[in-house]
Amino acid sequence: MTLYVNLAELLGTRIENGFYRPGDRLPSVRALSLEHGVSLSTVQQAYRLLEDNGLALPRPKSGYFVPADRKTPALPAIGRPAQRPVEISQWDQVLELARAAPSPDVVQLGRGMPDVTSPTLRPLTQALGRISRRSDMPGLYYDNIHGRRCLREQVARLLLDSGTNIDSDDLVITTGAQEALAICIRSVCQPGDIVAVDSPSFHGAMQALKGLGMKALEIPTDPLTGISLDALELALEQWPIKAIQLTPSCNNPLGYIMPEDRKRALLTLAQRFDVAIIEDDVYGDLAYTYPRPRTIKSFDEDGRVLLCSSFSKTLAPGLRVGWVAPGRYLDRALHMKYISTGSTATQPQLAISDFLKAGHYEPHMRRMRGQYQRSRDLMTGWVTRYFPEGTRVSRPQGGFMLWIELPEDFDSLRLNRALQGQGVQIAVGSIFSASGKYRNCLRMNFAAKPTAQIEDAVRKVGAATALLMQRTDPA
Amino acid sequence: MTLYVNLAELLGTRIENGFYRPGDRLPSVRALSLEHGVSLSTVQQAYRLLEDNGLALPRPKSGYFVPADRKTPALPAIGRPAQRPVEISQWDQVLELARAAPSPDVVQLGRGMPDVTSPTLRPLTQALGRISRRSDMPGLYYDNIHGRRCLREQVARLLLDSGTNIDSDDLVITTGAQEALAICIRSVCQPGDIVAVDSPSFHGAMQALKGLGMKALEIPTDPLTGISLDALELALEQWPIKAIQLTPSCNNPLGYIMPEDRKRALLTLAQRFDVAIIEDDVYGDLAYTYPRPRTIKSFDEDGRVLLCSSFSKTLAPGLRVGWVAPGRYLDRALHMKYISTGSTATQPQLAISDFLKAGHYEPHMRRMRGQYQRSRDLMTGWVTRYFPEGTRVSRPQGGFMLWIELPEDFDSLRLNRALQGQGVQIAVGSIFSASGKYRNCLRMNFAAKPTAQIEDAVRKVGAATALLMQRTDPA
Repeated sequence: MTLYVNLAELLGTRIENGFYRPGDRLPSVRALSLEHGVSLSTVQQAYRLLEDNGLALPRPKSGYFVPADRKTPALPAIGRPAQRPVEISQWDQVLELARAAPSPDVVQLGRGMPDVTSPTLRPLTQALGRISRRSDMPGLYYDNIHGRRCLREQVARLLLDSGTNIDSDDLVITTGAQEALAICIRSVCQPGDIVAVDSPSFHGAMQALKGLGMKALEIPTDPLTGISLDALELALEQWPIKAIQLTPSCNNPLGYIMPEDRKRALLTLAQRFDVAIIEDDVYGDLAYTYPRPRTIKSFDEDGRVLLCSSFSKTLAPGLRVGWVAPGRYLDRALHMKYISTGSTATQPQLAISDFLKAGHYEPHMRRMRGQYQRSRDLMTGWVTRYFPEGTRVSRPQGGFMLWIELPEDFDSLRLNRALQGQGVQIAVGSIFSASGKYRNCLRMNFAAKPTAQIEDAVRKVGAATALLMQRTDPA
Repeated sequence: MTLYVNLAELLGTRIENGFYRPGDRLPSVRALSLEHGVSLSTVQQAYRLLEDNGLALPRPKSGYFVPADRKTPALPAIGRPAQRPVEISQWDQVLELARAAPSPDVVQLGRGMPDVTSPTLRPLTQALGRISRRSDMPGLYYDNIHGRRCLREQVARLLLDSGTNIDSDDLVITTGAQEALAICIRSVCQPGDIVAVDSPSFHGAMQALKGLGMKALEIPTDPLTGISLDALELALEQWPIKAIQLTPSCNNPLGYIMPEDRKRALLTLAQRFDVAIIEDDVYGDLAYTYPRPRTIKSFDEDGRVLLCSSFSKTLAPGLRVGWVAPGRYLDRALHMKYISTGSTATQPQLAISDFLKAGHYEPHMRRMRGQYQRSRDLMTGWVTRYFPEGTRVSRPQGGFMLWIELPEDFDSLRLNRALQGQGVQIAVGSIFSASGKYRNCLRMNFAAKPTAQIEDAVRKVGAATALLMQRTDPA
């Protein structure tokens, strides 16, 4: 990426995160040129880009300002989950989401689906076709338990982008990141153990805890910087926690990227209390800024971080290819992989390996990062326009999910029911909590290319929300 | 299949199972004609077929006899496993097997690999290619948790061949039968529970018990008729058994088909003691006789049988497509599927569904059944020829595995080590026992089309066996 785009992204993130507020004066061209060691014209290009995106406004002879009428909706509040380990509930609501088959009649804002219609994915389907036509039919044979070496080598190369240095022999290919998460939980914990999680937290990981008999301790989480280290420290002092499970980069559902110093501090805490960290990085490569954020795993020195990821959010989920770097738990992870599915499907591994090797991954990522960032702005705008005043909205720094918080007595389960028959579906907030918190929240997906149909769907969700709020309003 | 082939198979099975011994006179043409309600010429055709296969010898004016020089090696003895629940061991040996990647330099007699080179599989790879080329790229999308409806409907149709009547909505598609087994175990049992298993028993199921914290109680198993019902009844009286896990049709590794009345009796036992049955049917469609044997599930009336199967042995294992019919445990099985892998890869499901729908499955099965049966005879002959006198051999009635038993002090682990460097690999017997029994046994795969290279591999195994036996021989 060129220098001016980099700079524009940096400034844009600061504006979006509220570092500069509406009406604020932005740094002078000269100051930025000195600060970042770039030419004046680079800074000017960056400002023009910000201007195009509605983030900066030039005033003659005064420099650049954040537009005063720029509405940034307030951020969701920091959650106040139960201060004790709980058995995980909400399976029935997750099941409803998991059962929903893709349907052309329903705008599924609730699902975790990326956009797979980009032409930059074409080489992947071509690779699948090519492997099908090979006379030695490699896709029909069992793979071994570790996963294809060619793919592991490509994944190891990819991981370098996040500062993560892993030998390909320390990787295990999995059937999506869900299998990686379940393997990790079972590699580290026994039934009855307590696992600390960010809150809100990915429902798939929490349901894995539930299914395997563990308890979750939800830790308050800041919508811009991630899990509260103070609260986590208190919890580690108070409870016999076995592992910390979280999504620190492009969090699902909040979209934040935990700053690097906080990732390091988290690892130090884990070392002090000798607990494992299960790091879910499925959205990490979809950070809007480049280079992508580092993983916690990249700072890990004693193998206590188990890094889980997949190609489900970056390439295509239907292929079910993920991986885990289980650190010191490799032997146990291999056993868990063996009993879970024996081995991973061969053909998609070969196709993805070909795709990566031919250099198609980076251009695809570049395109998707740009598309998702633009869609985030659009979707945030739609929510600001169509949802009732006071609606709080996350400010994702990567990925394709928006988290929306409504007044405390709002019930997103009722909202979802109200939307049935209107051809729209959302993810209810309560599935992101072990104890059914966040009923007043919902998650919406903005991966698909923006269309009038999607805008209309968001308008419907906003209208149905307003209607429900009027009904519960005592006035 | 025509009448005479049917009749020949029936008689052939009786000869192979020792009902008629070498030198015995076989029933007269007239008697068989009356018994089976077929014409005399049909019986004569059947006898000619048996003659071609070396199973019957005509003597002028005296009728047909079993050739007196026909060598049928003795059957393996009924195992005498530990009479108490045990924690499962042997993971390191299973890992060695699971780690072995396909290699052109090694004849892998130890693996569970079917022959995937048959031209009758061509339509399957064509379907994979066709789906890759579709512009709507269905293979890239998440499937839902249940699996593709089109595939479930085809599987439900297929199940009718085994007398099993299952609604497609009561099926869940899985990532191979291994995931189905792990899902079932977790749907029925809690850590610490006791599961009764046939013995020898499939290592994947037992490792799943181990990984999930259950104990196995190995039940003596007859090499021709399956799990001992008397021993099972005693065990059910004595221990709080939660489930019975077994492979009753074309057992792995013994190859027997449990007779129908014994399947019914097993179910009655399970009802009486109110335990679940986890029935592994992955080899069931590969029975040499037609129609294929019924499943225990086909007699199930109260949903206590969980039927697991896959296309890994019948079509191709690299696709990782299996299924489970979990009966009354459907809700819990869906939860376990969700946390295990979320959903199954989409493209292989669609390709297999197309393959089945177009009617390619039955011709493929017919061909493979014939090939495997012929290879069984060849392999049995090679073992008889190349292994030391007194070697006991199973008489598979389906599938592509031979189980070989050597004197009690023989050590197949040492054999496998001796074979390293000779380009041959076998499966050591101890992985088929929870407690490491059957070290004196080994399993060999006869799926691949017989070649001089394979015969040479068997010869090497026989020679290495003889050498080891001489060394341990006190004389």
